[in-house]
Amino acid sequence: MAQKQETDEKTQLGGDEGKYVLKTPKGTRDYSPKQMAIREKVFNTITNSFKRHAAETIDTPVFELKETLMGKYGEDSKLIYDLKDQGGELLSLRYDLTVPFARYLAMNKITNIKRYHIAKVYRRDNPAMTRGRYREFYQCDFDVAGQYDSMIPDAECLKIIYEILSELDLGNFQIKVNDRRILDGMFSVCGVPDDKFRTVCSSVDKLDKMPWAEVKDEIVKEKGLPESVADQIGEYVSKKGGLELAETLLKDPKLSKSEPACAGLSDIKLLFKFLQLFNITDKVVFDLSLARGLDYYTGAIFEAMLVGKEGSGGTEQDINVGSVAGGGRYDGLVGMFDPKGRNVPCVGFSIGIERIFSIVEQKTEASGKKVRTTETQVLVASAQKSLLEERLKLTAELWDKGIKAEVMYKENPKLLNQLQHCEETGIPLVAILGEQELKDGIVKLRDVASREEVEIKRANLVEEIRKRSPQ
Amino acid sequence: MAQKQETDEKTQLGGDEGKYVLKTPKGTRDYSPKQMAIREKVFNTITNSFKRHAAETIDTPVFELKETLMGKYGEDSKLIYDLKDQGGELLSLRYDLTVPFARYLAMNKITNIKRYHIAKVYRRDNPAMTRGRYREFYQCDFDVAGQYDSMIPDAECLKIIYEILSELDLGNFQIKVNDRRILDGMFSVCGVPDDKFRTVCSSVDKLDKMPWAEVKDEIVKEKGLPESVADQIGEYVSKKGGLELAETLLKDPKLSKSEPACAGLSDIKLLFKFLQLFNITDKVVFDLSLARGLDYYTGAIFEAMLVGKEGSGGTEQDINVGSVAGGGRYDGLVGMFDPKGRNVPCVGFSIGIERIFSIVEQKTEASGKKVRTTETQVLVASAQKSLLEERLKLTAELWDKGIKAEVMYKENPKLLNQLQHCEETGIPLVAILGEQELKDGIVKLRDVASREEVEIKRANLVEEIRKRSPQ
Repeated sequence: MAQKQETDEKTQLGGDEGKYVLKTPKGTRDYSPKQMAIREKVFNTITNSFKRHAAETIDTPVFELKETLMGKYGEDSKLIYDLKDQGGELLSLRYDLTVPFARYLAMNKITNIKRYHIAKVYRRDNPAMTRGRYREFYQCDFDVAGQYDSMIPDAECLKIIYEILSELDLGNFQIKVNDRRILDGMFSVCGVPDDKFRTVCSSVDKLDKMPWAEVKDEIVKEKGLPESVADQIGEYVSKKGGLELAETLLKDPKLSKSEPACAGLSDIKLLFKFLQLFNITDKVVFDLSLARGLDYYTGAIFEAMLVGKEGSGGTEQDINVGSVAGGGRYDGLVGMFDPKGRNVPCVGFSIGIERIFSIVEQKTEASGKKVRTTETQVLVASAQKSLLEERLKLTAELWDKGIKAEVMYKENPKLLNQLQHCEETGIPLVAILGEQELKDGIVKLRDVASREEVEIKRANLVEEIRKRSPQ
Repeated sequence: MAQKQETDEKTQLGGDEGKYVLKTPKGTRDYSPKQMAIREKVFNTITNSFKRHAAETIDTPVFELKETLMGKYGEDSKLIYDLKDQGGELLSLRYDLTVPFARYLAMNKITNIKRYHIAKVYRRDNPAMTRGRYREFYQCDFDVAGQYDSMIPDAECLKIIYEILSELDLGNFQIKVNDRRILDGMFSVCGVPDDKFRTVCSSVDKLDKMPWAEVKDEIVKEKGLPESVADQIGEYVSKKGGLELAETLLKDPKLSKSEPACAGLSDIKLLFKFLQLFNITDKVVFDLSLARGLDYYTGAIFEAMLVGKEGSGGTEQDINVGSVAGGGRYDGLVGMFDPKGRNVPCVGFSIGIERIFSIVEQKTEASGKKVRTTETQVLVASAQKSLLEERLKLTAELWDKGIKAEVMYKENPKLLNQLQHCEETGIPLVAILGEQELKDGIVKLRDVASREEVEIKRANLVEEIRKRSPQ
């Protein structure tokens, strides 16, 4: 479907000369009314969950000073869109919502806030639009900033991810958790030199797409570590479990020698205790292979992915859309912006809405259900000619009472066309006017689905429409 | 207030060296949670009106191919933000929502749609943030595309502007209407040469800020027209009225000789007939001095401005925020994008939300009313120590039932601090747990405002909270 769109979205302009192509920029797309209706539904589910968890919302500009973004994304900085220097400040489009959030906290000296932010971000990456990877895409971020008792906000983040993925009904999912300090401790006790932590970490990060043999090969051949070191790492990163795994590892003769690892493991234990109270341990796995790319994480990290079968009836199939949410603790980022380096501990996550959106879109398409793109309750129609003015007058009466009403922009539309319009757009009711109805002070109210018609006193029309409308 | 913000929004970073300034880019701002709460209220009013009028919504990327925007904005093109050439396509940030809409229609070969679009647009203009003029700002657009019977969609546009400005309760307002064809006809019969229509038009456009004597001076001295011509124009552009003025002008010995003017005047007559049916003629004025800047208008044009006093009690004062909405008919724009030049007639308008937003913000501030930034219904608290787990458990129970609940991220928070948090953030209820309550299977539910406490069976808590929550 998305591929179809990619072709459709180009139209040659300028006749034979083909002077330029009528299209949206590479890696971007328009949202049609139908796509918007689905998008709004998904956003509502997400926003409702954020609000249920007492979050406020903020907004920041779509571009930041270039220097605000510099030094935050490591190698990925090359994917940042810069604006042209047209005199004045050097600007870049935001790459995520986390760095602008940290800038906002530091600039306004805010030391605690629980906020969500749903907005578009920009990455000059290779687009793969069929798999929901765009250059302009939405992120739905939830973050808690502030000094609090250990792991409580971290646990709430996981609870929210769990709620949202359940409510969106995307099929089975799993939330992996780990801790940067456990990874660092593990590398240290396995004999990885400090300056190779990061590069080995990025190899380990590939374990969800590659078997261990290949990752090991990379660690040994590309990263130049002894096979014995790689084998020790291999043993650790194959471990998955829950609270009991953290307890076991705390007694691990090697790992227990690393102070950061022990701190991380104790926090994982505490986290799982809270997750039990939140009743969500069935989908959360402590997975030592979870590494996550970004540099700024300092503690717990987590990532949610959809797993298993998807579809209905006889058409079940594997859908592998990978990660749909990720996040972690970043206690050092705000300090990078504060003039005095004062830190504000933060934890949060980002939901990758485009992937979710493309699944919901596919499911909607497969279900064959019609998506309404308007909320119109009633069409004001007439069967006879020369009633435009009466139709407009009644429509305005309905608008003034808060009824969502439509009237066709024609002097003399055919009744059949008016009814057809209702069927096409899902308008459930038609208020039909005629000479006789006007004389009698009534309106014929027709139910589009059942084709039943009843005569309603004009004074009672609003009430009757409200009674028949959902909600 | 906005000025305070301008200073606040800069913080020197890098200590004494002042390496860089921690700020948002020139002409942009963050929205705080409080500003977001106000913004959402304004957007809801606008969106509800758009939906009441059966509109769908679309979205387009924040940037377009540079060539898509070229040749659409005349001199204002210099205000367009370009992206840096990083290899690949040349891109620009959108300058308005109208050109992307026309591009969308042409690209998808859509010949009729009624759509709204609320999104940010970008102009490298001189910001005047105290007066609500930003470089990044929202536009709320409503447009009807399609070949319909004369003036019906045009009239609906005015109805919607009327509804929104009334519902936002911004004080008195006026909607001026005119028609490009009347202006052209008027210039023609007054003896303005064809190639000077546009420049004289832009002089006339200043009549809302300048007296006629100055405008006349500009027409004679700067634009080089004879005084007699200017005097004739002066006579016409002083005319304001309604349907009867259009009728009078149709009999005007000079103006009636211009075919375009007559077409425009007939349409104004028809428009006012529809406005009468829509019951909004009290705020609409046919004003021959209304010119509007943009080139692409081809028929009716309109502009809404706030007028008169504003404020409450003894602090009434003049607020002149000028135009808050503007639009018109543009039947030629889509054809500029169509490979075969096929046209789709369009009419629509744009609401300038930043000005409205700053008025609502000032009014809210002046009223002294507290703006809630969260929707939390209940805080789960305890008076005794060591009840963190019980608090978390109850909070999760409430979340699972859809209750918006909060719990403090502390092992042993003081009850006073918990109650204070409720008062600060407007949370109306507190569910208090203690050893005794846990034993008895009850919860103490406290009304924060009245300080009344009642004991509720735990099984009935959700129901009780729902009963006490608004909506």
